[in-house]
Amino acid sequence: MTSFGSMWDDLGEVGRAPSGGYRRFAWTREDGALRDWFRGEAARRSMTVVGDRAGNLWAWDGDPDADGPGLVLGSHLDSVPDGGAFDGPLGIVSAFAALDLLRASGWSASRPLGIACFADEEGARFGVACAGSKLLTGDLAPDRARALTDADGTTLAEAAAAAGHDPRHLGRDDEALRRVGTYVELHVEQGRWLADGDAPVGVATAIRPHGRWRLDLRGRADHAGTTRLADRDDPMLTLAAVVQTAREAAAALDVVATVGKVVVRPNAVNAIPSEVTAWLDARGLPVPAVRQVVAEVGAAGGVDPVEESWVPPVVFGAALRDRVAAAAGGDPGPAPLLDTGAGHDAGILAAAGVPSAMLFVRNPTGVSHSPAEHAETADCLAGVEALARVVRDLA
Amino acid sequence: MTSFGSMWDDLGEVGRAPSGGYRRFAWTREDGALRDWFRGEAARRSMTVVGDRAGNLWAWDGDPDADGPGLVLGSHLDSVPDGGAFDGPLGIVSAFAALDLLRASGWSASRPLGIACFADEEGARFGVACAGSKLLTGDLAPDRARALTDADGTTLAEAAAAAGHDPRHLGRDDEALRRVGTYVELHVEQGRWLADGDAPVGVATAIRPHGRWRLDLRGRADHAGTTRLADRDDPMLTLAAVVQTAREAAAALDVVATVGKVVVRPNAVNAIPSEVTAWLDARGLPVPAVRQVVAEVGAAGGVDPVEESWVPPVVFGAALRDRVAAAAGGDPGPAPLLDTGAGHDAGILAAAGVPSAMLFVRNPTGVSHSPAEHAETADCLAGVEALARVVRDLA
Repeated sequence: MTSFGSMWDDLGEVGRAPSGGYRRFAWTREDGALRDWFRGEAARRSMTVVGDRAGNLWAWDGDPDADGPGLVLGSHLDSVPDGGAFDGPLGIVSAFAALDLLRASGWSASRPLGIACFADEEGARFGVACAGSKLLTGDLAPDRARALTDADGTTLAEAAAAAGHDPRHLGRDDEALRRVGTYVELHVEQGRWLADGDAPVGVATAIRPHGRWRLDLRGRADHAGTTRLADRDDPMLTLAAVVQTAREAAAALDVVATVGKVVVRPNAVNAIPSEVTAWLDARGLPVPAVRQVVAEVGAAGGVDPVEESWVPPVVFGAALRDRVAAAAGGDPGPAPLLDTGAGHDAGILAAAGVPSAMLFVRNPTGVSHSPAEHAETADCLAGVEALARVVRDLA
Repeated sequence: MTSFGSMWDDLGEVGRAPSGGYRRFAWTREDGALRDWFRGEAARRSMTVVGDRAGNLWAWDGDPDADGPGLVLGSHLDSVPDGGAFDGPLGIVSAFAALDLLRASGWSASRPLGIACFADEEGARFGVACAGSKLLTGDLAPDRARALTDADGTTLAEAAAAAGHDPRHLGRDDEALRRVGTYVELHVEQGRWLADGDAPVGVATAIRPHGRWRLDLRGRADHAGTTRLADRDDPMLTLAAVVQTAREAAAALDVVATVGKVVVRPNAVNAIPSEVTAWLDARGLPVPAVRQVVAEVGAAGGVDPVEESWVPPVVFGAALRDRVAAAAGGDPGPAPLLDTGAGHDAGILAAAGVPSAMLFVRNPTGVSHSPAEHAETADCLAGVEALARVVRDLA
């Protein structure tokens, strides 16, 4: 099992931030280094790497065009700003390590086996999560994708071109999608369900619906020292109401809501802001509860929230889910089932009709999207073994 | 009076932002263009321009070293982000225009006459307001100044060096200060006192005390979709409490308080922030009321506010104030007296013992630090004439 450790160490140096977390954003130099690492690991295993029109990478053992759709493992290598080491990379490193484990045991696949590296899963740079899988399935229109801009005003098209990916070809790729017979994604759990239940590995039942909304809170810039309180139109006060309403409404309706990103203009100590832009992330079930939180937050801000993304509930197919849980659990019995509030490429593929499943690896604190995100090595290795059993069963 | 209009038009092109406001920050390309404009206007009037160790520029008519300290007019040319056209530049343009008016009338000064262009009055880039005058008087230590950083991590020393000003020489400049016998600064009013009282020009009695405090609100980064509300430590909620407490405490104590600048880390839509840094601007009288607001805001945030600047009350000398008001008012009688909540280089010089006075020009809406900042041309010209009468009286 040493291949897991050495891959993990190699990856650990790429895009590390002073916080101890990672800054690995789509189509950056760091992203290029991660892609090079992926190509290198595939080559070391005599796998063929092909790209697709969406910017994703696929390492294949066997020929899915000649021998029919394959079983694909995978995840993503990009991160949120100052994100943890596990969210994404654990799935890809575990896929390579599971293949090593199976090959060492003398096993060989009865169908093509792929490992996917999805582009821009976090949407940290251009604001659309799962951009690679959504482009692949056609859920994200290429014209919209090309026009997305980062904080510096660089478009996704410009960034992809600078990284050597011709943006004119971006878009739905039925040929790449047809090669995927089944998709299985392993991911660190982003909560404490497995930790509380004392299991190292679980299997996903569903992804709860989630979305992002932008609130443009407008006021009137003015001098902080000379403008009477009664004469002010200060959007920072509106922000305070928005933040508090998001928490209160979410608590009342038993969903989660977060204001994690705020941009203030002009953002000067001695000026009342002219505008505060806030982004609301809201998730949960049932869908009308999420919609009501968004409506209440909009009312608190006096604006109509602009929906930047919305992912409906995804329920993974029960037959594949139960088969994966049985294989992953091994002798002691099936792995436990849990749902999740985080979006994943597996959810995009499942919604597009690709039979898909997910494994989760225990996270002792539940913390994610943070330098403190963690999984014990023993649990990671248990995840690799569970994934290997799933591959043995499915391929 | 055409010189006012043409100078105003020339300046209006420098550092204009898409908002219609201005972005003229210390030691930038725009700052260099403004300095070039200042040198050009001085040369056109056969004035000698000298710098000082603090980065300020001085245009002299006459020799203050040979003929004793002079009368200095002036203000600053830098702006807050998306600031107005008048805050600062009106004082310098009016000074040149007043000199033109006096010379056209055949007047000549009985003492050296200077026009000062103070560096970095707004503190928009490096966070310390009146940095040029505070360096000049020794109120800002050169080591601290050199180490100040902007949002990109560039130090003031690096920025000054890049602009051709050797940062090793930054610091108190007694020689430059000794040349200033009297300082008179004309400024657009940043409030509606003159508009409500129907007077085009007023004279300052005092600058109310004001300060800036930084609040480092720490939480724990976590996934926005998977972390239960009860498990969160979300500093955005603390920000909301800070913003509301600032407004409520200021209203209760009859001072003003503003949260105009906020920096969120990591500032990702799908991550609970690890830290929110907020800056509090608080001003007013009496001083204990301001201190109490700061204490209440700190308590709401669960932190000790870090004092980044504090300017005690400045009361301009009554004899000079009344003489300036009489001269500025002209035949109808003295100009009205008002105090202000905004800091100015004149306040720094007054506190350092330089006899100083200020004229304010009517602002019909009171709006400042905003693209909407305005003064009617007729009022600006009335300000020039008032300033010319003051010069005639004092020099």
